[in-house]
Amino acid sequence: MTAAGHRREHDLLGDREIPAEAYWGVHTLRAVENFPITGTPIAAYPHLINALAAVKEAAARANEDLGLLDTERADAIAAACREIRSGAQLHDQFVVDVIQGGAGTSTNMNANEVIANRALEILGHAKGDYHHLHPNEHVNLSQSTNDVYPTAVNVATIIAVRELLDAMTVLREAFAAKAEEFRDILKMGRTQLQDAVPMTLGQEFSAYAVMLEEDQSRLAEAVLLIHEINLGATAIGTGLNAPKGYAEAARTHLAALTGLPLVTAANLVEATQDCGAFVHLSGVLKRIAVKLSKSCNDLRLLSSGPRAGLAEINLPPVQAGSSIMPGKVNPVIPEVVNQVAFEVIGNDVTITMAAEAGQLQLNAFEPVILHSLSESITHLGAACRTLAERCVAGITANTETLRASVENSIGLVTALNPHIGYTAATAIAKEALATGRGVAELVLEQGLLPADRLAALLRPEEIAGTGGDLATA
Amino acid sequence: MTAAGHRREHDLLGDREIPAEAYWGVHTLRAVENFPITGTPIAAYPHLINALAAVKEAAARANEDLGLLDTERADAIAAACREIRSGAQLHDQFVVDVIQGGAGTSTNMNANEVIANRALEILGHAKGDYHHLHPNEHVNLSQSTNDVYPTAVNVATIIAVRELLDAMTVLREAFAAKAEEFRDILKMGRTQLQDAVPMTLGQEFSAYAVMLEEDQSRLAEAVLLIHEINLGATAIGTGLNAPKGYAEAARTHLAALTGLPLVTAANLVEATQDCGAFVHLSGVLKRIAVKLSKSCNDLRLLSSGPRAGLAEINLPPVQAGSSIMPGKVNPVIPEVVNQVAFEVIGNDVTITMAAEAGQLQLNAFEPVILHSLSESITHLGAACRTLAERCVAGITANTETLRASVENSIGLVTALNPHIGYTAATAIAKEALATGRGVAELVLEQGLLPADRLAALLRPEEIAGTGGDLATA
Amino acid sequence: MTAAGHRREHDLLGDREIPAEAYWGVHTLRAVENFPITGTPIAAYPHLINALAAVKEAAARANEDLGLLDTERADAIAAACREIRSGAQLHDQFVVDVIQGGAGTSTNMNANEVIANRALEILGHAKGDYHHLHPNEHVNLSQSTNDVYPTAVNVATIIAVRELLDAMTVLREAFAAKAEEFRDILKMGRTQLQDAVPMTLGQEFSAYAVMLEEDQSRLAEAVLLIHEINLGATAIGTGLNAPKGYAEAARTHLAALTGLPLVTAANLVEATQDCGAFVHLSGVLKRIAVKLSKSCNDLRLLSSGPRAGLAEINLPPVQAGSSIMPGKVNPVIPEVVNQVAFEVIGNDVTITMAAEAGQLQLNAFEPVILHSLSESITHLGAACRTLAERCVAGITANTETLRASVENSIGLVTALNPHIGYTAATAIAKEALATGRGVAELVLEQGLLPADRLAALLRPEEIAGTGGDLATA
Amino acid sequence: MTAAGHRREHDLLGDREIPAEAYWGVHTLRAVENFPITGTPIAAYPHLINALAAVKEAAARANEDLGLLDTERADAIAAACREIRSGAQLHDQFVVDVIQGGAGTSTNMNANEVIANRALEILGHAKGDYHHLHPNEHVNLSQSTNDVYPTAVNVATIIAVRELLDAMTVLREAFAAKAEEFRDILKMGRTQLQDAVPMTLGQEFSAYAVMLEEDQSRLAEAVLLIHEINLGATAIGTGLNAPKGYAEAARTHLAALTGLPLVTAANLVEATQDCGAFVHLSGVLKRIAVKLSKSCNDLRLLSSGPRAGLAEINLPPVQAGSSIMPGKVNPVIPEVVNQVAFEVIGNDVTITMAAEAGQLQLNAFEPVILHSLSESITHLGAACRTLAERCVAGITANTETLRASVENSIGLVTALNPHIGYTAATAIAKEALATGRGVAELVLEQGLLPADRLAALLRPEEIAGTGGDLATA
Repeated sequence: MTAAGHRREHDLLGDREIPAEAYWGVHTLRAVENFPITGTPIAAYPHLINALAAVKEAAARANEDLGLLDTERADAIAAACREIRSGAQLHDQFVVDVIQGGAGTSTNMNANEVIANRALEILGHAKGDYHHLHPNEHVNLSQSTNDVYPTAVNVATIIAVRELLDAMTVLREAFAAKAEEFRDILKMGRTQLQDAVPMTLGQEFSAYAVMLEEDQSRLAEAVLLIHEINLGATAIGTGLNAPKGYAEAARTHLAALTGLPLVTAANLVEATQDCGAFVHLSGVLKRIAVKLSKSCNDLRLLSSGPRAGLAEINLPPVQAGSSIMPGKVNPVIPEVVNQVAFEVIGNDVTITMAAEAGQLQLNAFEPVILHSLSESITHLGAACRTLAERCVAGITANTETLRASVENSIGLVTALNPHIGYTAATAIAKEALATGRGVAELVLEQGLLPADRLAALLRPEEIAGTGGDLATA
Repeated sequence: MTAAGHRREHDLLGDREIPAEAYWGVHTLRAVENFPITGTPIAAYPHLINALAAVKEAAARANEDLGLLDTERADAIAAACREIRSGAQLHDQFVVDVIQGGAGTSTNMNANEVIANRALEILGHAKGDYHHLHPNEHVNLSQSTNDVYPTAVNVATIIAVRELLDAMTVLREAFAAKAEEFRDILKMGRTQLQDAVPMTLGQEFSAYAVMLEEDQSRLAEAVLLIHEINLGATAIGTGLNAPKGYAEAARTHLAALTGLPLVTAANLVEATQDCGAFVHLSGVLKRIAVKLSKSCNDLRLLSSGPRAGLAEINLPPVQAGSSIMPGKVNPVIPEVVNQVAFEVIGNDVTITMAAEAGQLQLNAFEPVILHSLSESITHLGAACRTLAERCVAGITANTETLRASVENSIGLVTALNPHIGYTAATAIAKEALATGRGVAELVLEQGLLPADRLAALLRPEEIAGTGGDLATA
Repeated sequence: MTAAGHRREHDLLGDREIPAEAYWGVHTLRAVENFPITGTPIAAYPHLINALAAVKEAAARANEDLGLLDTERADAIAAACREIRSGAQLHDQFVVDVIQGGAGTSTNMNANEVIANRALEILGHAKGDYHHLHPNEHVNLSQSTNDVYPTAVNVATIIAVRELLDAMTVLREAFAAKAEEFRDILKMGRTQLQDAVPMTLGQEFSAYAVMLEEDQSRLAEAVLLIHEINLGATAIGTGLNAPKGYAEAARTHLAALTGLPLVTAANLVEATQDCGAFVHLSGVLKRIAVKLSKSCNDLRLLSSGPRAGLAEINLPPVQAGSSIMPGKVNPVIPEVVNQVAFEVIGNDVTITMAAEAGQLQLNAFEPVILHSLSESITHLGAACRTLAERCVAGITANTETLRASVENSIGLVTALNPHIGYTAATAIAKEALATGRGVAELVLEQGLLPADRLAALLRPEEIAGTGGDLATA
Repeated sequence: MTAAGHRREHDLLGDREIPAEAYWGVHTLRAVENFPITGTPIAAYPHLINALAAVKEAAARANEDLGLLDTERADAIAAACREIRSGAQLHDQFVVDVIQGGAGTSTNMNANEVIANRALEILGHAKGDYHHLHPNEHVNLSQSTNDVYPTAVNVATIIAVRELLDAMTVLREAFAAKAEEFRDILKMGRTQLQDAVPMTLGQEFSAYAVMLEEDQSRLAEAVLLIHEINLGATAIGTGLNAPKGYAEAARTHLAALTGLPLVTAANLVEATQDCGAFVHLSGVLKRIAVKLSKSCNDLRLLSSGPRAGLAEINLPPVQAGSSIMPGKVNPVIPEVVNQVAFEVIGNDVTITMAAEAGQLQLNAFEPVILHSLSESITHLGAACRTLAERCVAGITANTETLRASVENSIGLVTALNPHIGYTAATAIAKEALATGRGVAELVLEQGLLPADRLAALLRPEEIAGTGGDLATA
């Protein structure tokens, strides 16, 4: 007898009772029990849920095209999939843990069951009446987890990366705007934290913008690789149980549904076991993280102070900095970006190990790859937007401090070298070091250059040299 | 004018409206806005919330002891803290993101505000009436984020590690029970995946148990290090603004409240900037992960098959293994443990980078260290219990297959060497290789050993040799 | 007084005696004393030494073109550089440690001194007579370490990567040859180490070849990025002290000397501080390592045995495997490749940390990046060639074992499903599992398929399905 | 016929010619050919060579004790081993590559052959006359690579770690001496790079010394773990082919020869497959690296300038800093230490992966673990000594700058809070921020404190507070 409010489902391990309102079924139930690891359900990745629905709809249509599935069932499956994709509807039915064994089988079965049960309702049947429409025999027809899951992961990741690219554009433009704003502000450049030679603050910010632009190019290239899918490979790439023509039909439908220029891998056996594209993508995300972190380290350094630091720029205050020191304001936005970067770099190691651990015809560890990749991509996007909007956009420069540091520097000598001669330059440098006085001051005092000539040499456009167009990203 | 259902709070950046029912205040609001990174609030770490409450109560009592806080306020603060610790009450008010800038300031301020507002209610005042009891001036009295936050992280981590140790015991005992069960089952040992010399299946499982026991010892040692706290250090370790006697009083109260043998660090300046103990602890977690992963790799390998694999043991089926191949059962539990291990190893890199990035008197990146550590500890615990209960406990051995592999092996020759002589042994080995026949069979056939003598040499206790007591963990 | 057999040189720290026969000078001497870390001199990287010589010759010619350096000195410098590049001559004079502080300054100065002293000899002067030709004023003219060193690293790395690409081709072709050789050999495919569905051994090896081919494409793309150089940037990218036209002239000469299509970075300030291309390249090397390691794991697994393993293939024996077990042969070649892979993956973390640690206008840690990259590239190349020549080329298949595993498998049912019907297939599977008998045997016995029809279904071309052309890399 | 100057040796793969003067033999020759990876021979690790010789001597004596080896042969083997250990003699005969397949078999065979051939000479025989004394049958008697190699690695690592501990002591004492020297120098403490509250420079350096002391304690604990050896385990831990009593006899001899308190593992099967102690040790080395790197980051930051930086301390100049900027001196010693730290952190990942990849009864990847560990240990030792001797010992403080930063700081208000009241403190802070004037100056001007009282509050002992005894490591 089945308990009130429940229905009974059967699998190879026996019968289980399922809450009557649940769209998921017995396979999902067992998976939930088997993987009590993070407490985070796959619903946390809406792009993945939507991508699964798109793959299932595409497969149903391909099966229909090939005469394997009648139009009534195909329509019902497609309708259920569209409901999922059209909003967050049914997303709460995707309940298996983000970290799971089984190479994604539980995620695939969760999708098969939810779609089957919703399609059953659409067809006027009760949930669980699988003899009308079956999770495996109809929703999963011509498919295997081993082609459905990677394909859905690819589609979801493409969408997520596009969002990241947008966030990076926001940040890049924020840096570029500052580069333009600061184009005439002289400052000392530093190498190895030691005073080097003059530059403009605009050049400093321009470099951050250019770095991001290059990163965007690399990311756009990397995401191209995952437009290659293995749908139609079924279990190991030989296409067993998928009829002739299915792979191409399914790909065509999926491309149409998602609007993505997907292609089928040339060698499906290889494509089914290979996680190289994810390792590659994660490597590019790590590259982005490394440079974001470096840029944030710089912002924190340049804004150090207010008295006992470099105090070259001011980050906008966004919250009180201390529970004990009144008036203290901390660089909390760059700090949170640094931490996201560290997380992304750690995730890259996780992904690397998971990819290396694949054996023979399949990598069983794709769930943790997906989990880590998703985290890296979404957190990086959030970090870029936060950094742009809550920090970079409000940065101001301490122009006088910056200019004084140039005039006061020894490094200025290197710039004057061609104009006052090496001997005079060396003598000036020595005197500046000994007396603590500024090079500009000494040069004027000793009449080595007239004031207007010195001023001309210190014009931003002169100092910026060949280091790239000012304020150009 | 304040909007309906709201109260108005003020900080150095101006006024903000707070929902009337919220226990958190303006600092928390800004932090929530500043750190929209993961979407996971610190409430996800109940041990941390409870530890913060314990630290705040201990501090209030220490301030009371030293005459800095009147008993009425101290009682109210303590009552609020106990409510938090006595269940999940108010935990939903801890809303700042787990990845946050500011070295934990937002977490500390979130606690100060929630405790102050609940204490105000207890005292009969409205939330927000901070002139009666102030988040900073009273709840945070004699404290800084820089000593409160690390202390709370230590306390929370100690509790979490104890839970992990318990989970490891469950797994260790599961392995040890199998070692006992399998003590008489002969099998071939393998080195470099090549047949080596005989052993017992009990020895194989015993090794897993012993590994875990050693890991538990290391973990217990590592957690001792974080019993050293810096409460009383305030901002940078000089104890500025904390009165004489405060550090010792607060430590005593905290030890009593938590039941933990906490000690105050000898050098508080060092203790306030140093994340060495977390790096160390994470290193030990990584060690555990490495060996858990190795054990799971072995389980998957030994249970490979059913026909085209080693098929030495059977893992209990816990779910259908394939959406396409009927009857296939996969080693999904070891697989999920492998993935947790990869995550822990990646987290170790994140923690390493965050620790290395500390500068001067403080490490600003402790939030991501806490986040990664918590994840590693709780996921490892879940993995150990799942592995024990859903896999190891149900493992069975294919005894006949195992014994046949010994009798059929060439490696058996090495064991018979002392008994039949090197020359005969070599001849037998050559013949076995050439004919594909078994060594035991040939030895009997050629009369090199009588059957009972051979049987005696193949007794488990003989084969197990000096490799450790059978079935001992 | 100078000791016999020595000359005296001077720098800002004072005088030092240099062995008379040494081509290096006082800056090199101090660097050798300052960095006693690994004991490995930069001479261990001949590509770097040659690249430095090429850069110095290109710079000398550019300076000559612009009238900054007379032809006699330019010729002497060029002659010295060509001697270095034309063989290993003078390479032993490059003695500073591979791990060094100073952002490569010591390496650059080592080059300046060796080239100056050799050029002095060519001009008929004694070593150390720097008033005729000076390491800094002439050899380093218009240059800074901060543009010379990265440019030389780029050039050296391009050459090294080309060698790696060649080695990968050797390995890819070895895999492809085996794919062709094994195209008709049936075997069971495995997912999650459990028997899945049939495939050919040719497909298995084809996948390795295809993976490598994809990796080669990624590597070729990544190396394109480091064709962008910052020569002419001088100290921080502003080109200070380099005359107008120098950057283009130097690039043109360097491109001609090396035969590489080098381009000058559009934004030299960014290019001088950014290590993104190295992080990217290392990420691609890591990807290669991950997949090489996976392939070697597979080879070790497939060749496990000889009796108690899968024993599907045989690796050629290349040395005795054991000091104690007679006749044991181990998969030592795949094992050494695995270890190189682990090293490359660790190096990627080193490079990541070094890149992240760059500050403001320069990354001071490029020496360890170069060191790690060089190690990864050359060891991967050696690993590929060794694997190809000492392992893959000699692999043989145990054809009968492989075919039997298919006929004996339960997974075969999945392939017969469309031909005998789902109900019959399930019944056969159950009987096979219960009795231990083979599916093929049962199908024939029960007359479900005639023998010729079954044989036809088991033809390799049927089994290989749509998994990619057989034996195609 | 054998070529002139050669002898002929035989193994299971056939005959090979060996140079007559070589002490190594055919197994070594094949290994050299099989592993052309790094070009670095194991002779690069003298501690390992010496440890192998000690193990072989101990084994010979144990075999002699048990009547398995006659005294003449045992004496000859022991004499050969003592020659190896007494200097670098014969070390050049250890020629196999540091990265090698085969779990150390080639290293063990290299040792067996060199010792056998030298012992043959001692006995008056020709090299290669193995019927008198055989590499396997006599030198390797009762042993397997799988117990000899790990035991030797343990012994070598213990010695190397002791040297590292000594180097750490040198550095710790250098920091402690500076802590004492700087005990009276006031400075601003910083959190999150923002001015916090005052402290002494002595406290800053004291923290570095204390960190190192803690690291030394952890390292001393970790190295204890590798005093547990598996000698006597032979192939897989069952002790097959080692007679009763051998393990204890060999351990006793080895302990006596090395002076190390070695113990035999309780469970030899576990000990033979487990690399946990190496993972643990590497984790501790990583911890040391993290904190050394952090300390060096601080040193570079505090010495930034000379004009446009913090300029709080001066690192001693050890070489010219720039090939282009005259007079520039860079923090090259901390920089090289940072790079060693990055290398150690990367090596930890390599070791982690190698340990995780162990399978069943053995970890085949111990050679790369040894290689990475050795590198980490020796480079860290070199880095500590270099940092102590070439940098820390010569650091000077800019006392006036440091004191001015305190008097000029806003953060001073926090310290004066208890003495002038919160209201006055806040007003002073606001005025200081608005006018750019110093807090001390304003306090005196407004008569809030008499000059002597203010001076008293700024005494170092007052400022240092409870942050730990001054200058105590």
